[in-house]
Amino acid sequence: MITMKETTIITLEKPKLRNPICIVGLPGIGNIGRIAMGYAVQQLKAKKFAELYSPYFFPFVMIHEDKIHTLRNEFYYYKDKKRDYIFVIGDCQSYDPKGHHEVAGSILEFLKSFGCKEVITIGGFGTGKVTEKPQVYGAATDQSIIDDFKKSGVKFDVTGKITTIVGASGLIVGLSNAYGMKGICLLGETSGYPIITDPTAAEAVLTVLQKTLNMKLDLKKLDEKVKAMHEFIKKLDSIQQQATEQISGGGKKKDDLKYIG
Amino acid sequence: MITMKETTIITLEKPKLRNPICIVGLPGIGNIGRIAMGYAVQQLKAKKFAELYSPYFFPFVMIHEDKIHTLRNEFYYYKDKKRDYIFVIGDCQSYDPKGHHEVAGSILEFLKSFGCKEVITIGGFGTGKVTEKPQVYGAATDQSIIDDFKKSGVKFDVTGKITTIVGASGLIVGLSNAYGMKGICLLGETSGYPIITDPTAAEAVLTVLQKTLNMKLDLKKLDEKVKAMHEFIKKLDSIQQQATEQISGGGKKKDDLKYIG
Amino acid sequence: MITMKETTIITLEKPKLRNPICIVGLPGIGNIGRIAMGYAVQQLKAKKFAELYSPYFFPFVMIHEDKIHTLRNEFYYYKDKKRDYIFVIGDCQSYDPKGHHEVAGSILEFLKSFGCKEVITIGGFGTGKVTEKPQVYGAATDQSIIDDFKKSGVKFDVTGKITTIVGASGLIVGLSNAYGMKGICLLGETSGYPIITDPTAAEAVLTVLQKTLNMKLDLKKLDEKVKAMHEFIKKLDSIQQQATEQISGGGKKKDDLKYIG
Amino acid sequence: MITMKETTIITLEKPKLRNPICIVGLPGIGNIGRIAMGYAVQQLKAKKFAELYSPYFFPFVMIHEDKIHTLRNEFYYYKDKKRDYIFVIGDCQSYDPKGHHEVAGSILEFLKSFGCKEVITIGGFGTGKVTEKPQVYGAATDQSIIDDFKKSGVKFDVTGKITTIVGASGLIVGLSNAYGMKGICLLGETSGYPIITDPTAAEAVLTVLQKTLNMKLDLKKLDEKVKAMHEFIKKLDSIQQQATEQISGGGKKKDDLKYIG
Repeated sequence: MITMKETTIITLEKPKLRNPICIVGLPGIGNIGRIAMGYAVQQLKAKKFAELYSPYFFPFVMIHEDKIHTLRNEFYYYKDKKRDYIFVIGDCQSYDPKGHHEVAGSILEFLKSFGCKEVITIGGFGTGKVTEKPQVYGAATDQSIIDDFKKSGVKFDVTGKITTIVGASGLIVGLSNAYGMKGICLLGETSGYPIITDPTAAEAVLTVLQKTLNMKLDLKKLDEKVKAMHEFIKKLDSIQQQATEQISGGGKKKDDLKYIG
Repeated sequence: MITMKETTIITLEKPKLRNPICIVGLPGIGNIGRIAMGYAVQQLKAKKFAELYSPYFFPFVMIHEDKIHTLRNEFYYYKDKKRDYIFVIGDCQSYDPKGHHEVAGSILEFLKSFGCKEVITIGGFGTGKVTEKPQVYGAATDQSIIDDFKKSGVKFDVTGKITTIVGASGLIVGLSNAYGMKGICLLGETSGYPIITDPTAAEAVLTVLQKTLNMKLDLKKLDEKVKAMHEFIKKLDSIQQQATEQISGGGKKKDDLKYIG
Repeated sequence: MITMKETTIITLEKPKLRNPICIVGLPGIGNIGRIAMGYAVQQLKAKKFAELYSPYFFPFVMIHEDKIHTLRNEFYYYKDKKRDYIFVIGDCQSYDPKGHHEVAGSILEFLKSFGCKEVITIGGFGTGKVTEKPQVYGAATDQSIIDDFKKSGVKFDVTGKITTIVGASGLIVGLSNAYGMKGICLLGETSGYPIITDPTAAEAVLTVLQKTLNMKLDLKKLDEKVKAMHEFIKKLDSIQQQATEQISGGGKKKDDLKYIG
Repeated sequence: MITMKETTIITLEKPKLRNPICIVGLPGIGNIGRIAMGYAVQQLKAKKFAELYSPYFFPFVMIHEDKIHTLRNEFYYYKDKKRDYIFVIGDCQSYDPKGHHEVAGSILEFLKSFGCKEVITIGGFGTGKVTEKPQVYGAATDQSIIDDFKKSGVKFDVTGKITTIVGASGLIVGLSNAYGMKGICLLGETSGYPIITDPTAAEAVLTVLQKTLNMKLDLKKLDEKVKAMHEFIKKLDSIQQQATEQISGGGKKKDDLKYIG
């Protein structure tokens, strides 16, 4: 039974998955993870099998194309020849520090119940300048997973460049060992300007995933698909930015959000 | 047993309800939902059968007409010829994002236990200008419910106008599918000036409900009743506004609220 | 087992109490409740039988007379001829809205387990001016309890004067009906200047309690005892005021509190 | 099973411990506890047997020496001739008042399950000036423990100097009685300038522990080891300071933390 007293995952289907590896693409700088995995889900026709709701998501629903859209994260699976995939995508991360932990823990617990042993999260690394050939940086829990991704060109010498990974993407990897998993966070280099969706960095990350995992992804249609996703993401980002400011700024501009209740 | 560690509903009576439809009228812009359903409860002599208390409501009691009044939401039922109704009205919404989710989830869980399959929430859409003939806008989860209300003149082409519905009214509808229900939010067009109660918009929404659901409501006494409710609502709104500012503004004006402990 | 994940009451003794009535004196404006009931506990040699700890109390311990003092509320009982008393006194109220509800609910649940049917809370009503003969105001849940206290001179026509009672004292009374109890809040008239302990108002409230309940209290030593309590209360108040500002003001003056960890 | 919905301790090993005494060295002013016990753990080759994770820690992971480091507290044991030791060290304290209580309670509950009856926490007392021969101050729950430490030169006449001990170190001692333990907090005198690690004060505290408990600690390498720990601690402190400001300051400088998600 769903309860909104804590983060809850609703299971729509219980697929049997062979040695599944999970890739998480949640919103963040440049929306790299979200558009990369959003594209993978579409291209591979992955099937949704669960939804995550959290009381630590923003307390509103969105109206998009005249329909009500409730903020959530979603789980998809894709059965490949040798092993299966779980993709996690979503509209939002938590607005709250405790919420980040609760969402990360809930995702890991759920993945564990499907026998998942490896989790990859995708984020962005904001450099403040625009790059044509973005690098992909990595930070991981185990040497074996580092070795696998190094071969595909991921840079792991990040000390001095990257000091923290904030939010669920960092915590999912950081806590993966405690759930008996290995984890890696792949960070696409991006300008980091607010509310910019960076398909070039997303492509760089997807290329790394293709190489390392032998995923069959046709990246030609990425630009086109990103454009289609763009309007929704832009709207959502802009609202969440407003909401974040209001939650922290103390409701002074409450009318800006057009409170409807 | 009531506990104030989480949102709790106290059941006063367990009525058997036939295919109940729920209409929720909580405070919000123009207090449209609250006065519309407050009026419906009075006119139909609906019977209170449950009360909801939440630790995420404001931490004070009100004194009204020399009596202590504890902030709560209330559930009423009304037995009609073909089907029964549940009305939810209340003094307040949560002051806190997590609270909005918890209250919405608690209401949905409770409604489900009575076999409720449809939920309507009523809110306001603040336009910034005064209108004589306010429009009623809608946003819903399912096409079938949209079709029903379109016939009664509700406008569903809201994209560009309305982007979010904040608070319990939005979340109740947004999460209704996860509880096996259909949901719709009806938004009465209103100026949206702070602490103004808008009976004209409430009448517009009630007219829509009458038409669509064949409710037997005499709207003639609405103005009169709204005036009677007005003093209490105005006082409550003014206190809650102060309290919201203090919670977010950091207690700087703590003495304004006349802290009594 | 005590846990600091939620408000917890540790029972030191389980007395059998005959038809107990509870009087709550927690900190607040003028510290009226705290000194009134602190005095009653001393004078009647009431016996401590439980302690309440809450994660929603301030996150520090005090050092007083070279010893560590942990913030808590305390339960005392006193066996009188006809019926027994439970007194609740404490160092603090919650710093947080949810905490106020949790503490109020925990106290009520605990009282119920001892068969308590009536609860009285004591607070202050800050008028902004000094009075020699302070009035005692009341707000209650039931007419019968109002009638009892009216005879002792308590004024119940408070509309226009008092609009809210903030914190545990208000909520304990406001929620008492939901726990099968009747409740009344007695408010001593006081100037309400910050961090002033008002023994005159405390005496006025104690006189009302004596008259209504036939309590055998010798009020002659009140002044003397209040002076003895004063140093500790003043220190605690001053620290809590600082802490409240820091929690709400965002740690800007963090070093003021001399963070020691 | 670890869950990130509340503070959780993962047990790696269940050692049988003889009459264990626990010493807690968490971050705080001058990082005295953290470096003192970090040094003791290294020198005595104490063995890690449990890890504590909390949703009330900061919501990010750190990258240190190209590896992901998740914020946590750690439990070590050391078997000595007469009795055994439990050392608690950690990267951080909670960012949140409720979290401080939850972490303190979780540590005490866990210690109790190993038959621990005494707990010592180490903190700093910031005086605002640099001292060559720092004093060690103490505050305790029981006279017997005070007597033991007085003999080693700890000063217990702190009234007027120290009024509060903020955070887990204070609460662990303050709540120890409720878990059937005795507790003492040792506070090394230190300048208290932000983000300064004070090995001289740490040495003063370790000397007291050596004398009182007959611990076999060689303090000669302290300086050297503190230098080795220093880079990590400095980085962590600087990030947490930034994070604290952002959580309280409302995300205005959100890009400073280089949000990566």
